[in-house]
Amino acid sequence: MKKRPSLKDIAKKLNVSVTTVSFVLNGKGKEKKISDELIKKVIDYTDSINYRPNKVAQSLRTGKTNILVFMVEDISNYFFSKIARIMEDIAYDKGYKVLFCSNENEDERSKELIQLFSERQVDGFIISPSPGIQNEIESLIENKIPVVLFDRYFEDLDVSHVIIDNEDASSKATKHLIDNDFSRIGFITIESSQNQMTNREKGYVDAMKSAGLEPLILKIPFEKIHKEETKLEIRKFIIEGQELDSVFFSTNYLTRTALEVIKETDQTLLEKLGVVTFDDNELFRINTPTITAVSQPLQELGESLMNTMLNLLNSKAENLKPTKSVLKASLIVRNSSINKN
Amino acid sequence: MKKRPSLKDIAKKLNVSVTTVSFVLNGKGKEKKISDELIKKVIDYTDSINYRPNKVAQSLRTGKTNILVFMVEDISNYFFSKIARIMEDIAYDKGYKVLFCSNENEDERSKELIQLFSERQVDGFIISPSPGIQNEIESLIENKIPVVLFDRYFEDLDVSHVIIDNEDASSKATKHLIDNDFSRIGFITIESSQNQMTNREKGYVDAMKSAGLEPLILKIPFEKIHKEETKLEIRKFIIEGQELDSVFFSTNYLTRTALEVIKETDQTLLEKLGVVTFDDNELFRINTPTITAVSQPLQELGESLMNTMLNLLNSKAENLKPTKSVLKASLIVRNSSINKN
Repeated sequence: MKKRPSLKDIAKKLNVSVTTVSFVLNGKGKEKKISDELIKKVIDYTDSINYRPNKVAQSLRTGKTNILVFMVEDISNYFFSKIARIMEDIAYDKGYKVLFCSNENEDERSKELIQLFSERQVDGFIISPSPGIQNEIESLIENKIPVVLFDRYFEDLDVSHVIIDNEDASSKATKHLIDNDFSRIGFITIESSQNQMTNREKGYVDAMKSAGLEPLILKIPFEKIHKEETKLEIRKFIIEGQELDSVFFSTNYLTRTALEVIKETDQTLLEKLGVVTFDDNELFRINTPTITAVSQPLQELGESLMNTMLNLLNSKAENLKPTKSVLKASLIVRNSSINKN
Repeated sequence: MKKRPSLKDIAKKLNVSVTTVSFVLNGKGKEKKISDELIKKVIDYTDSINYRPNKVAQSLRTGKTNILVFMVEDISNYFFSKIARIMEDIAYDKGYKVLFCSNENEDERSKELIQLFSERQVDGFIISPSPGIQNEIESLIENKIPVVLFDRYFEDLDVSHVIIDNEDASSKATKHLIDNDFSRIGFITIESSQNQMTNREKGYVDAMKSAGLEPLILKIPFEKIHKEETKLEIRKFIIEGQELDSVFFSTNYLTRTALEVIKETDQTLLEKLGVVTFDDNELFRINTPTITAVSQPLQELGESLMNTMLNLLNSKAENLKPTKSVLKASLIVRNSSINKN
């Protein structure tokens, strides 16, 4: 690799001191009373050799990198990748770059990524945490590194977060089905103790019980969501099992899998079965029938995440007060959940 | 921010030299004939204070970061985000982390991101280049930094790339429509001089001409693809303009926009209009009718990209010989392109 010229090389070449070169390149020439002539000489020469200060060394001195990390469950999931783009654009305008990575909701991977980035001194972390990384988050906070949690959080940890009101969203979706005369309403979700999922379940269960209806729940283990057996399970639950008249899915990937199952087996099923999904996307807008969806406010979530982070970055290390934002999701009613009688 | 203990602090605390501490922490204690007892003392103490070597300083010495960058047009586009995930998983197993970012196909943004990462000495770049960054790529290569271009490349630059045979894919798709008795076949694409797009156009035009048919092309400027006027233009082209009996779309986002337009205006149109799209995804599998698609081999592309990069990383700087891979896409025939007569 071509060696980058050092300050020493430049100083030698110009026959001045290293300190002089360093002051000039750090914009402190005037302040240090270096003559205009000498300043010009250093700048002209470093421009002519296309000299760039070593930013790794620089960030060792300043402790600032202007790099933020956005760690999500799966960067190829529409929900996360859209928010990533929204944040990337806001950050870009503010002079920050955002790097993305996926933790697959696995603790080991999350820990490795957090360590990797801490060692490289990024300025802040926005994280959709996997279940067991409370200690790592705590340690970032102790080290005064700005952290914003996203989508889910740890109840006994005082850290900034931006989430939606999952219980409310789920309750609205369930009540909407009840209002449209569905009563055997199944809830298909993933097995999880994380609060974004438990709150969705709670919203459903409470709405069902309030209406005197029996909750009917199928839970899929997260690691099996892309497996063929999941398709079979979903099919069994919807078609053979519980005489469901409708289903509410707690995530967009479960709905996608179910739509594929239905497509492969009995297309006419959708004429009778009520369907509501969590997380809107283009597929649900275009599908026949169009699918009613809980729509998370992506733009607002991205803006709120970035604003929370920028506030933390701009406040003195001593008062990094956590900000907790809970946004409301909306229900977008389409054909799939209209009364089928 | 809590100050990280320095080697000096540790040496002072243990009453040994800084060099001793440094040798032990860099796994050179034995080699440097430091006693087992002293090695144990240093390791026990640094473990007890949870000491972590400063990786920024370390990468200044070793020049290795084990970080790769994958710069795509738009990380929220299904095609790029899926490949990102595939590469992330392969890299993870090999001890590399991959960071993602989007350049929006804009040169300024590409340049800033390349500069940012070069200054932080990442080990390699995988880039879907925007049109005008040939010089920046050249400069990375001159500095012996491994680069693999993806999806498109610069014809007069000798750099590794992984692409698909766009001309062949486009030709197959067009011939498929012709074989199904379509003859007024429109081609909707984006305005672009980049070779992934010009080759798609060439494949279409040549196949049409070979069959004695007139090419009918609509080009949308890239910066307008999410604008409402694009919907109008597409509608005009398909519905009012050319008496088309079928359309071949050169990108998945154009197809999505068109499906929305059709959904909003005349759903029955899809019963008559033949449709083929570039880039498969779940939407096209589930849509009614299911949509025939040119399917890029995502898994193979991801693997080929990562293998090419790993080979470059493992070869000596002197012989970073470019590898150029051209993979074939396949046509997945579904209901939308079957003879409608």
